Amino acid sequence: MYESLRQYITEYSSLSISEEEFSLIKEAFKPKRLRKRQYFLQEGDVCKYTGFITKGSMRQYSVDTAGNEHIVKLSIENWWAGDYESFVMLTPSKYNIDAVEDTELLITTNEAIQELRSRVPAISKMIQVMDQRGMIAGQRRMHASISLSAEERYLELENIYPALLQRFPQTMIASYLGITPETLSRIRKQLVTKKV
Amino acid sequence: MYESLRQYITEYSSLSISEEEFSLIKEAFKPKRLRKRQYFLQEGDVCKYTGFITKGSMRQYSVDTAGNEHIVKLSIENWWAGDYESFVMLTPSKYNIDAVEDTELLITTNEAIQELRSRVPAISKMIQVMDQRGMIAGQRRMHASISLSAEERYLELENIYPALLQRFPQTMIASYLGITPETLSRIRKQLVTKKV
Repeated sequence: MYESLRQYITEYSSLSISEEEFSLIKEAFKPKRLRKRQYFLQEGDVCKYTGFITKGSMRQYSVDTAGNEHIVKLSIENWWAGDYESFVMLTPSKYNIDAVEDTELLITTNEAIQELRSRVPAISKMIQVMDQRGMIAGQRRMHASISLSAEERYLELENIYPALLQRFPQTMIASYLGITPETLSRIRKQLVTKKV
Repeated sequence: MYESLRQYITEYSSLSISEEEFSLIKEAFKPKRLRKRQYFLQEGDVCKYTGFITKGSMRQYSVDTAGNEHIVKLSIENWWAGDYESFVMLTPSKYNIDAVEDTELLITTNEAIQELRSRVPAISKMIQVMDQRGMIAGQRRMHASISLSAEERYLELENIYPALLQRFPQTMIASYLGITPETLSRIRKQLVTKKV
């Protein structure tokens, strides 16, 4: 499972990793398995670990005072699990993160990441690129949420992350888009009619 | 005007800047003035410059096919102007950025920033912290947009960035919150009644 992490690092950093550096990486990341529905993080806890998903799928969500779930992130293989704010600031998280399927991760702490960053140039560069892409993806999603219709947001998701539509149930996709499952169902039916 | 940039860098990086480093910074950033309503960036152009605002206020917005404006960012002194995605990826921007008041900035290019980053540790650290805070602010705003009511979003803005409510007209605040000016006006009246 370390091989997919290695590929990810070299792809994001455009730098190669020596065997010695790979040993440091393997020391810093520990394997973790979660059964379907098992929690990786619960609201109110500090997110001590971030995890690179090598198999399975996860979701990150908050629960409002009325008990409604709001999904902010859906993740599959080669994505990261963890509440960024809580992980970086060591503050209690507003979110829950759980496994949607049986999931395998490689987890590490912020301390270990900072240590690695100073010793492995590819890790430092990877974090730089990840932060940059994260900012861009966040701004695109924010822009979509204030300027696009529900149908346009669905089409954008289908265009950018088609894999997510295959892997997650419709109720979760609807929550991620900030719409009701009924609205999502109506949009999908209309799109099928348009395509015919 | 360079003094406020210097303060900003030392505050964000928690590192001091030598006189030699400050000279490099002054070489990399050039003063620019914009009159009220003048553009800093127009849709379709590549965002070649990012600007540190030393005086004035700006907005970043897109215009949809129906001609409606959607404000994604409102900025005042000690904030940065520029479309992050276009600036980093050198792609045509989806946004317009213009001055809401007469504005003064210190502008620089991505190339100059990358050069500075490698020579001035405080700049490298500042960018790291800015990216981190930017990610966190983006996630908070995204979460607010899918899980909070319009009234709650207004209160969050009032709580986190009270200065923005003083500096920008209600129509721009409404657009930033993704609501109509009428809804914003109703929310403000209700809040006044509650507070009395």
